[in-house]
Amino acid sequence: MNGSIFILKGNIVYSKSQTEFAICEHSYLVCRDGKVDGIYRTLPFRLGGNPIRDFGDCLIIPGMTDLHTHGSQYALRGTGMDRELLEWLETAPFPEEAKFSDVEYAKKAYGIFVEDLKKSPVTRACVFATVHRETVMILMDLLEKSGLETYVGKVNMDRNCPESLREKTALSASETKTWIRQVQERRYRNTHPILTPRFIPACSDELMDCLSRLQKEYRLPVQSHLSENPEEIRWVKELRPDAEFYGEAYDKSGLFGGECKTVMAHCVHSSEEEIQLMKEKGVFVAHCPESNANLASGIAPARRFLDRGLSVGLGSDAAAGTSLNIFAVMRQALQASKLRWRILDKNEKPLTVEEVFYMATKGGGEFFGKAGSFEPGYEFDAVVLDDSRMKSPEQPDIRSCLERLIWLGDEREVREKYVKGVRLEL
Amino acid sequence: MNGSIFILKGNIVYSKSQTEFAICEHSYLVCRDGKVDGIYRTLPFRLGGNPIRDFGDCLIIPGMTDLHTHGSQYALRGTGMDRELLEWLETAPFPEEAKFSDVEYAKKAYGIFVEDLKKSPVTRACVFATVHRETVMILMDLLEKSGLETYVGKVNMDRNCPESLREKTALSASETKTWIRQVQERRYRNTHPILTPRFIPACSDELMDCLSRLQKEYRLPVQSHLSENPEEIRWVKELRPDAEFYGEAYDKSGLFGGECKTVMAHCVHSSEEEIQLMKEKGVFVAHCPESNANLASGIAPARRFLDRGLSVGLGSDAAAGTSLNIFAVMRQALQASKLRWRILDKNEKPLTVEEVFYMATKGGGEFFGKAGSFEPGYEFDAVVLDDSRMKSPEQPDIRSCLERLIWLGDEREVREKYVKGVRLEL
Repeated sequence: MNGSIFILKGNIVYSKSQTEFAICEHSYLVCRDGKVDGIYRTLPFRLGGNPIRDFGDCLIIPGMTDLHTHGSQYALRGTGMDRELLEWLETAPFPEEAKFSDVEYAKKAYGIFVEDLKKSPVTRACVFATVHRETVMILMDLLEKSGLETYVGKVNMDRNCPESLREKTALSASETKTWIRQVQERRYRNTHPILTPRFIPACSDELMDCLSRLQKEYRLPVQSHLSENPEEIRWVKELRPDAEFYGEAYDKSGLFGGECKTVMAHCVHSSEEEIQLMKEKGVFVAHCPESNANLASGIAPARRFLDRGLSVGLGSDAAAGTSLNIFAVMRQALQASKLRWRILDKNEKPLTVEEVFYMATKGGGEFFGKAGSFEPGYEFDAVVLDDSRMKSPEQPDIRSCLERLIWLGDEREVREKYVKGVRLEL
Repeated sequence: MNGSIFILKGNIVYSKSQTEFAICEHSYLVCRDGKVDGIYRTLPFRLGGNPIRDFGDCLIIPGMTDLHTHGSQYALRGTGMDRELLEWLETAPFPEEAKFSDVEYAKKAYGIFVEDLKKSPVTRACVFATVHRETVMILMDLLEKSGLETYVGKVNMDRNCPESLREKTALSASETKTWIRQVQERRYRNTHPILTPRFIPACSDELMDCLSRLQKEYRLPVQSHLSENPEEIRWVKELRPDAEFYGEAYDKSGLFGGECKTVMAHCVHSSEEEIQLMKEKGVFVAHCPESNANLASGIAPARRFLDRGLSVGLGSDAAAGTSLNIFAVMRQALQASKLRWRILDKNEKPLTVEEVFYMATKGGGEFFGKAGSFEPGYEFDAVVLDDSRMKSPEQPDIRSCLERLIWLGDEREVREKYVKGVRLEL
């Protein structure tokens, strides 16, 4: 049996490697049973008769991943960023997240977030919700309906946060277990639970142990924050004297890679030791350059992450990042790396467009498995981009078109999106 | 006689000072004879009967100024920025600018630039063309037709650039004189000539002297580049051993403020001496944070410029900057200042939204005279902004709406623009 086949035609670009594009001009991208079958310059005889959608000069790129964002903070985007992390949390996200105890508010706020995420250039995302189990399910229902592929986390925190968000340790654990079972019952196709201890300052050792047990019981992945801000790091040193460095605190609790698939956002101030441990344990970095500028956190050593062989994806980190436009995150990653090179370390070569594109596609996609590439066997996530808004006196070549999209593109360029072979209604 | 009066109604915001907004909710902004007459919460009886346009909850802000951009590089935007300034000039702008000897190419390329500038959030701009007198006039004709208020420069360069762009010194001067007279003959309403020596490396002392004579004869303002890149600065030291620092080279040629109104782009690496001289001579800074990141130039000390009392506006610097969206330049200025604070100097407090808004409006507007404010007597430049694209579960207050526009806005929010009391056809 041949299975279900359809074909997209256009200028196809994906990452041949971390440093090189594969560019296939006016070619056929074949989807078979939700997976990439292959790319052909001329359609093979055996594939004749299958439905073809011809997008002319449009670019077709692999679906991109937003490896770190907060659905529950989206209403704050573009406001109140005149503070550093810890003070900002107190004045902006915490009061906002407290509102998500209200089902009606959550429906409205998550509705806007999911609508914008659906229109954005990404097909996959790792999303923080809030501590509130009931409204986390609202977010998950909305995301499932959108057709996007996502990991969604019910946030855990049992200390150092306002009363309105603080969970009792045992209740935080039991609510999380109830939530996991509830998710299992829904039998979502695209929406998956991910354990989400907010960060060490907000999670007691006991809570971390409970989450580690749940992790082992349900084999769930984990997302959290790491080494974002100097004050935060000092605080973690006080709170966890057992750990030599921030990442080791997660590791000692069994929530830092290895059997436990883990993504850590930021890593702006990660030491060589921390980077080394991430490498050993296979911990992903969600690089969030816009957020790191907006909260004056600094510039993460993205070049070092790549040199040390870490898995790196990009995160919008709304609402410390302002938008869900992953193209904007790519250009911010380029800019940040250039400034880091100029100001901090001439040994850390600026990132290239090839590298940030890799991060946005295959780099982040790997957290989901075989996603973010058009190599045969990869899940068929594709984004069709129409750059006709960008007028030019002479037609640029395909590589330049992609480069320009990375520097200038947003949701206006997104013409169609496919997730695991299914076209989204935009 | 009352003169010609019309009134805009909406949520009006302008800069009360460099550090404070004036916010006038649902108020009337009165234009009389192309100038701001006043803002009223209740319309005075004597103004009754004049035409009113009510924009509901839209924001109405003063026209913004792009204090530094290159019309002739716009086709390059978003491509080829993997180099530093001097190498980038050789590989991208110089070959592109050479194309502007061709009238047909210039019509096409400048047509796209002017169309996008018209739709952008700015009402005024200082624009670099190329060395080619004939096609500079094409740009000026197009800009005049757009209704925008602009200074446009025929570029001068007689050394250290490709043959295709290099002018003989005497011819550069005579062509500039012919160009100035040609502009005078056209009797433009909104389009003005500005002397434009490219930068010291491309202009011999003799050429600078010729331009200084033209400056005195025609009392023209001047625009150029200053202290953008470390290599460039070293080169200027070699080329102009008579000058203690880069700015002094312009000053010794009589093209650095005083009687000669001057704007210098970048000033990323300006010393205290240079800043002091700019202050004394009233030289404007066109702060171009995006360009400075994209070419790895660094982060200009914007906080120091403000502390020392310099006049500072914002520049998109297309095509080292990627777009003509001055909102994006504002947020890049915020981000750059936060990173500078974090990485370089904890004494240089990050910029605030109030400060970057001031730079974009009154700061840059001052280069044109009384522009960029709604204080009575200012030229009536206004931008009506509709932020309904930015959905929110709860309606933010007016200040937050403006803040969000600064962080997220682009040309999609521009509903109407007025220049000197005339509404532009968008």
